[in-house]
Amino acid sequence: DLPFVLIAGPCQMESRSHALETALALKDMCDKEGVGLIYKTSFDKANRTSVAGQRGVGLEAALPVFAEIRESLGIPVLTDVHNAGQCAPVAEAVDVLQIPAFLCRQTDLLLAAGATGRAINVKKGQFLAPWDMVNVAKKIESTGNDRVMLCERGASFGYNTLVTDMRSLPIMARTGCPVVFDATHSVQQPGGQGSSSGGQREFAPVLARAAVSIGVAAVFAEAHENPDCAPSDGPNMIPLAEMPEFIATLAAFDRLSKARPLHSL
Amino acid sequence: DLPFVLIAGPCQMESRSHALETALALKDMCDKEGVGLIYKTSFDKANRTSVAGQRGVGLEAALPVFAEIRESLGIPVLTDVHNAGQCAPVAEAVDVLQIPAFLCRQTDLLLAAGATGRAINVKKGQFLAPWDMVNVAKKIESTGNDRVMLCERGASFGYNTLVTDMRSLPIMARTGCPVVFDATHSVQQPGGQGSSSGGQREFAPVLARAAVSIGVAAVFAEAHENPDCAPSDGPNMIPLAEMPEFIATLAAFDRLSKARPLHSL
Amino acid sequence: DLPFVLIAGPCQMESRSHALETALALKDMCDKEGVGLIYKTSFDKANRTSVAGQRGVGLEAALPVFAEIRESLGIPVLTDVHNAGQCAPVAEAVDVLQIPAFLCRQTDLLLAAGATGRAINVKKGQFLAPWDMVNVAKKIESTGNDRVMLCERGASFGYNTLVTDMRSLPIMARTGCPVVFDATHSVQQPGGQGSSSGGQREFAPVLARAAVSIGVAAVFAEAHENPDCAPSDGPNMIPLAEMPEFIATLAAFDRLSKARPLHSL
Amino acid sequence: DLPFVLIAGPCQMESRSHALETALALKDMCDKEGVGLIYKTSFDKANRTSVAGQRGVGLEAALPVFAEIRESLGIPVLTDVHNAGQCAPVAEAVDVLQIPAFLCRQTDLLLAAGATGRAINVKKGQFLAPWDMVNVAKKIESTGNDRVMLCERGASFGYNTLVTDMRSLPIMARTGCPVVFDATHSVQQPGGQGSSSGGQREFAPVLARAAVSIGVAAVFAEAHENPDCAPSDGPNMIPLAEMPEFIATLAAFDRLSKARPLHSL
Repeated sequence: DLPFVLIAGPCQMESRSHALETALALKDMCDKEGVGLIYKTSFDKANRTSVAGQRGVGLEAALPVFAEIRESLGIPVLTDVHNAGQCAPVAEAVDVLQIPAFLCRQTDLLLAAGATGRAINVKKGQFLAPWDMVNVAKKIESTGNDRVMLCERGASFGYNTLVTDMRSLPIMARTGCPVVFDATHSVQQPGGQGSSSGGQREFAPVLARAAVSIGVAAVFAEAHENPDCAPSDGPNMIPLAEMPEFIATLAAFDRLSKARPLHSL
Repeated sequence: DLPFVLIAGPCQMESRSHALETALALKDMCDKEGVGLIYKTSFDKANRTSVAGQRGVGLEAALPVFAEIRESLGIPVLTDVHNAGQCAPVAEAVDVLQIPAFLCRQTDLLLAAGATGRAINVKKGQFLAPWDMVNVAKKIESTGNDRVMLCERGASFGYNTLVTDMRSLPIMARTGCPVVFDATHSVQQPGGQGSSSGGQREFAPVLARAAVSIGVAAVFAEAHENPDCAPSDGPNMIPLAEMPEFIATLAAFDRLSKARPLHSL
Repeated sequence: DLPFVLIAGPCQMESRSHALETALALKDMCDKEGVGLIYKTSFDKANRTSVAGQRGVGLEAALPVFAEIRESLGIPVLTDVHNAGQCAPVAEAVDVLQIPAFLCRQTDLLLAAGATGRAINVKKGQFLAPWDMVNVAKKIESTGNDRVMLCERGASFGYNTLVTDMRSLPIMARTGCPVVFDATHSVQQPGGQGSSSGGQREFAPVLARAAVSIGVAAVFAEAHENPDCAPSDGPNMIPLAEMPEFIATLAAFDRLSKARPLHSL
Repeated sequence: DLPFVLIAGPCQMESRSHALETALALKDMCDKEGVGLIYKTSFDKANRTSVAGQRGVGLEAALPVFAEIRESLGIPVLTDVHNAGQCAPVAEAVDVLQIPAFLCRQTDLLLAAGATGRAINVKKGQFLAPWDMVNVAKKIESTGNDRVMLCERGASFGYNTLVTDMRSLPIMARTGCPVVFDATHSVQQPGGQGSSSGGQREFAPVLARAAVSIGVAAVFAEAHENPDCAPSDGPNMIPLAEMPEFIATLAAFDRLSKARPLHSL
């Protein structure tokens, strides 16, 4: 089995310079551990808890920055799309299209994303069982695109709380799709601060090392130099300064896990 | 407090004649009990479990039928919208726009729906706490449209199962918005049949009378002359033949409930 | 179907005089509405959140008071038992033995309770599905005692939260046992105050009228003249002053529900 | 941090010879990996799903066998107690008393167990939040006995399903108590086979390696030479033949985890 890849970056693109600096910083950290990096950032936060939440720089401003990160820095880029019309233009500028969890059953979006031929990372809905993701993968694969990744990011557990069922990783792997573990959204507390979501960033490394020990293709983790001042997802992002240890630890567990793979289940 | 209204119809529009016949049949039943009817049917099932699931007649075919039901039969019509672009054209032909549960936090959709000035029925996401719906209402109200209804349709409870927390009705009522109880989707078993959802239609009348006893502005219930042959949501739709008793019972409980309202909570 | 019975009283016996006064007050209220009363109070709170929680007057002090309430006041009495050895002596003094929810699968306790021949009210464990209660009933019935009542009191829903699935009432009724709805423990927030449980007493009447509308044999509700000063379960007990309206409302819904029974499911 | 200890054995004692053989087999396997073993077996299954479920050899038959395993084989022994009266006699014959999950809030049982001075392993109730276990530990510690271990074994997640929230391990560790992960009960499906519980034994190694990677003091796992024929818990026990790989893998992850401990949270 191949080593895990890190999908990381700030929740939303804040500016060109912030994007480039964060991408370079993460690239350096990953290089030191021999870990592959896919840079993640959003051009639009389309489902904020509150209408007052900051949404991001928007598609037009973001596309040239995505292109610059890919071409000048040589770092592959992932971003999320929110409607069918965005898929084709965004696919021009990035390597991986991501389907948000709330939208993981929207057929038109899945088909449009699939039709671009790009790799697709689908977040599992908080309302879905892991065995139901096979239907989601099949929707995308019906376009002839089989580059589908399935991503665990927590399941609804009572109100304002998510729980990560680690069994979902081997269950989703039965589809044959690479499985991604989203360490920072799995510790979100949806709506937990009234007009914004809370989070428990201290548990992101806990769940990430558990997932890597079980065996995943990639870990997704949002990171920011100053999460408490970030425009979104601050409570669950990992401070950039803690990322070197985060990456090194996961790399160590990943090596052990790949040397002792679980039997397929 | 006003008597409850029934929002009912087949899950998806199957044909013009089927739509008109069902609307007339339901109208007759409601008239006999003095219950107001809003006819509900979908032109597109945009988030079927499987890509092979039948999606419906589509927007263009449906709009004239919606108009005919409103104008010729005098029955107000509700249908659901799935992206911002659909809101304006659909609002021309119907009285109430409905926001699907999975999409209840998609800001652009909520704003576009609000901007039509039509009444909006928002289904509470299976992943949301009832107190989080105030943020959803505020998104719509930010357009200057305060005709917002909030609809309970079950919360995620483990895998492939929903549970109805009846406390959500008075909690959502605190917003001042009329509260709707969706009796047939609350008994859905999402993904419960592998490549389609299951349902427990026998419990729809159970939950509906509980909700009406607590006090709601409207009950939503999908109905079909032969649910087991319906193209979608068969397992949870109520057979048309059982609707007269369903309506009569709810009307009786509604009268008692409105005579003995709960203190606001 | 018979009218519902009210099982009510303070969470724990505080003194002989408090017990007699509360029993008389509740009896008066029930008589006014033609509702039967079973007086409930505990001699021991055996599973308090914290070791510092007050446990009650104990078995020896309570038994003569139970006897006095039954014999002098003519009110049937229910209390809960916590181990097999308590069943026989307690059965001498009360009409109904109650099995606490946490203990609803303890075979020896169920068998000892059953062997007394008394009616047994078993609370459904917060960790049990309603269809699993048939196994609990069968354990008791294996003693030759078929006077078993099954009681809904909420199911675990994430942390520190219970949810009432109203489907559990008709599901448990399939066993043929009378079904009881516990309105005040269903709104408990277990462990929700750190070293004691919280509660939402304002929702007890909400859930109770929903349950009665569906149809139950009895409603269970703890009541106290000053819940905020009660030694246990204060946050979820109903103030005695609110009980007359509570009882009158439930009686009205019960009459309607018994006149329009749900088909058995 | 010390290496993890394995708590293992068949769910229930079936006979003296079966107990001794299994203990020796497990001891051999653990010795090969340098892992400490505590032998676990129950003398009574006091809360079977059905009254027809086999309960075990009983206290009197088991005590001499426990003593023999400790004294002749030199293996420490753990067993579970179900009422206060059992604590003292059982403590004579074993090293660790275990409190079953359903009973984790029964004050008298916790106090009697604590009073023996033995180490106590308390299973976290399926209905409890991990932060509520501090109250359970304090009940035992009020006896002057601070040898308390807290054990994760899954939380209720909808009906007939448990989920393991891996955050519970560091949360319970905040108490200062050693934390145990029960790999085989965490994959139980309570009541999932109608009159007995189901299980997913294939996921026990998945969850165990996740827990060990996070860092635990002990792993609990029931094992049997032929689980499908075992009198209880067959669906979730690990076949004895698979235990060597199970132990070796956990030992490898434990070494890495102890070399890279998580910051306390």
